[in-house]
Amino acid sequence: MTAVVGPTRRPPGTDPALVDVPAVLRRCRALVDPALRAAVARLDPTTGAQAGYHLGWTGRDGAPAPGGGAGGKALRPALALLTARACGADERVAVPGGVAVELVHNFSLLHDDLIDGDTERRHRATVWALWGAPSAILTGDALLALAQEVLLDGAGDAAGDGTASSSTRRGSPEAALLLSRTVRELVGGQVADVAFADRDDVGVDECLAMAHGKTGTLLGTSTEIGAVLAAAPAPARAALRTFGAELGLAFQLIDDLLGIWGDPAVTGKPVLADLRERKKSLPVTWAVVHGGDAGHELAAWLARPDDPDTGPDDELVLRRGAALVEAGGGRAWAGAEARRRLAAAEAALATLDEHLPATDAPTHRARAELVALGRHLADREA
Amino acid sequence: MTAVVGPTRRPPGTDPALVDVPAVLRRCRALVDPALRAAVARLDPTTGAQAGYHLGWTGRDGAPAPGGGAGGKALRPALALLTARACGADERVAVPGGVAVELVHNFSLLHDDLIDGDTERRHRATVWALWGAPSAILTGDALLALAQEVLLDGAGDAAGDGTASSSTRRGSPEAALLLSRTVRELVGGQVADVAFADRDDVGVDECLAMAHGKTGTLLGTSTEIGAVLAAAPAPARAALRTFGAELGLAFQLIDDLLGIWGDPAVTGKPVLADLRERKKSLPVTWAVVHGGDAGHELAAWLARPDDPDTGPDDELVLRRGAALVEAGGGRAWAGAEARRRLAAAEAALATLDEHLPATDAPTHRARAELVALGRHLADREA
Repeated sequence: MTAVVGPTRRPPGTDPALVDVPAVLRRCRALVDPALRAAVARLDPTTGAQAGYHLGWTGRDGAPAPGGGAGGKALRPALALLTARACGADERVAVPGGVAVELVHNFSLLHDDLIDGDTERRHRATVWALWGAPSAILTGDALLALAQEVLLDGAGDAAGDGTASSSTRRGSPEAALLLSRTVRELVGGQVADVAFADRDDVGVDECLAMAHGKTGTLLGTSTEIGAVLAAAPAPARAALRTFGAELGLAFQLIDDLLGIWGDPAVTGKPVLADLRERKKSLPVTWAVVHGGDAGHELAAWLARPDDPDTGPDDELVLRRGAALVEAGGGRAWAGAEARRRLAAAEAALATLDEHLPATDAPTHRARAELVALGRHLADREA
Repeated sequence: MTAVVGPTRRPPGTDPALVDVPAVLRRCRALVDPALRAAVARLDPTTGAQAGYHLGWTGRDGAPAPGGGAGGKALRPALALLTARACGADERVAVPGGVAVELVHNFSLLHDDLIDGDTERRHRATVWALWGAPSAILTGDALLALAQEVLLDGAGDAAGDGTASSSTRRGSPEAALLLSRTVRELVGGQVADVAFADRDDVGVDECLAMAHGKTGTLLGTSTEIGAVLAAAPAPARAALRTFGAELGLAFQLIDDLLGIWGDPAVTGKPVLADLRERKKSLPVTWAVVHGGDAGHELAAWLARPDDPDTGPDDELVLRRGAALVEAGGGRAWAGAEARRRLAAAEAALATLDEHLPATDAPTHRARAELVALGRHLADREA
């Protein structure tokens, strides 16, 4: 007897719950990595070496990192590749887009680490801490310029076997324009973040706008750029941008929770790191504004500078701050808001079926992988 | 009786000696300025205000600068416009190119002022000195992204009256690719400049390569981008790139001479500024390498740090350094090399007649204006 495949039965391999997310990330990474390395190899040797260190490929002495230098998880390239496939294209058309968003992400990390005075990232010394501020500034600048170059000359196409469309090989001005606007918004987000440090009246909406600028914009561009390079129609492009941007906010909300309650061994940041810096993150801002008495107390706690005699806050003081964020409802709200944003992302992705019905198994699978990847990111609090 | 116009007689208005260079710069500036301001207006308010201050449009309080805020002389935009016209096009097609090279120039000034620790530029406090390092980093980043955006969406076309070609209005990926490669070279030049500070074995050739990266590349791109936007054939484009790049080296050589012997009232830098910083500029490097005994003494002088008890070098010590550069032949060589570079620039420009014969008076005039502008820049030592 043959099983009857009903209309509610998913095609094989398209249940998000069954997707092996780390394997998906590894597969995308393997596609993008050669093109990313080829791009970085165009830089002058000094800048290239510092970029390679920052990307986790080498140690500070330039020797290859143990384990081949896996570096970060390359989430943004994966989004670019999966969205291209979700639009029915070969995911290799999105390789230049994946390279470009990864370069822009790392440009912003290099500059932000310097701006924030962070001496460590992912348990490693930051570029400015090792080689000085000029190195971090110039290496960041070079990665930003390189991102545009890769999109415009199409050389980020790693396959090199003629499978990518010829239009991609000639570069994509549309993708490059999208990226340049994204950087402008990214800067706006970082400017707001810097300005918040000196303010005690930050609202939840402007804090969300800042988080959108700092994180949502580039994730939205990572998904949109895949659609652009797949030559998807405008409504599909818009739906995928929404997917990425909402996912970006969910991601940032979880990141903010981890910045307070995360395990230092996992986050790579000191315990209670964001409170140590009195960062006006989303849960903190929500608690200050909507937290009643606990919120008022939190505001006073934030305004209190370190005691110069006893040095940086000890853990007890920081734990008090965390308790106030929780008592003010900031922790619960941020978790709920992250779930709402994830639901909005998935709803946008589901509209793809109206604009661009999936016609084959790989396209179905890519959509399931996007859902799974989103849930994986929004599940980091567990 | 009518005068006979012989073959050696120049068409009217095409004698470089008769060109009113300041008037040419003002005319080009007037064409580019509205588009430049429209581009900067796209930035978030904080970044836009700091960019406007840096560009000389406003004071540090945001009020319009006296005299309408003329800012710098906008040499690079003028080169872009004049080369477009030298290729027979309406110079307005090059407005997005002019805006983009001016934005990239100012991106690099913002970052370099911070890297070099310069607190003043053109007799005004620098952005990092006023608002801190994060502002200079982020405002620079924003201007770099904006430069690409202007080239890719073609919105830098200020005329807005339909005179620019429709291809320019849609943006020029070719110009954007040229610009992104230029930024990579610019960073390489700045990296070399930073590295030279810690070295005592800098050669003349690598110093010229550094100067090419820091100055020649962007001037070469300023002239080439005009040719690109005018859709000039490849040999004309190459000739104009050479014109700009050689002019850039002449410009840098003169700049280095002014950094030692220039009048502070004119240069806007302290007297003997470059020697105060022990900068390995071109005349200094030449004197160290080729200056015999004076060169050896100069090398020892450069290696001697400030006496911590007496503070920064007094003028007498600096004058001794300047005398050693002169005795080692660095001053004479730099002047002669600047003249050679200018001659090479003019020779490249003259080849335009083979590749792209001028057919009308405006094209003739633009070529004469380019020659006059080059001589004006290389004549600043007088």
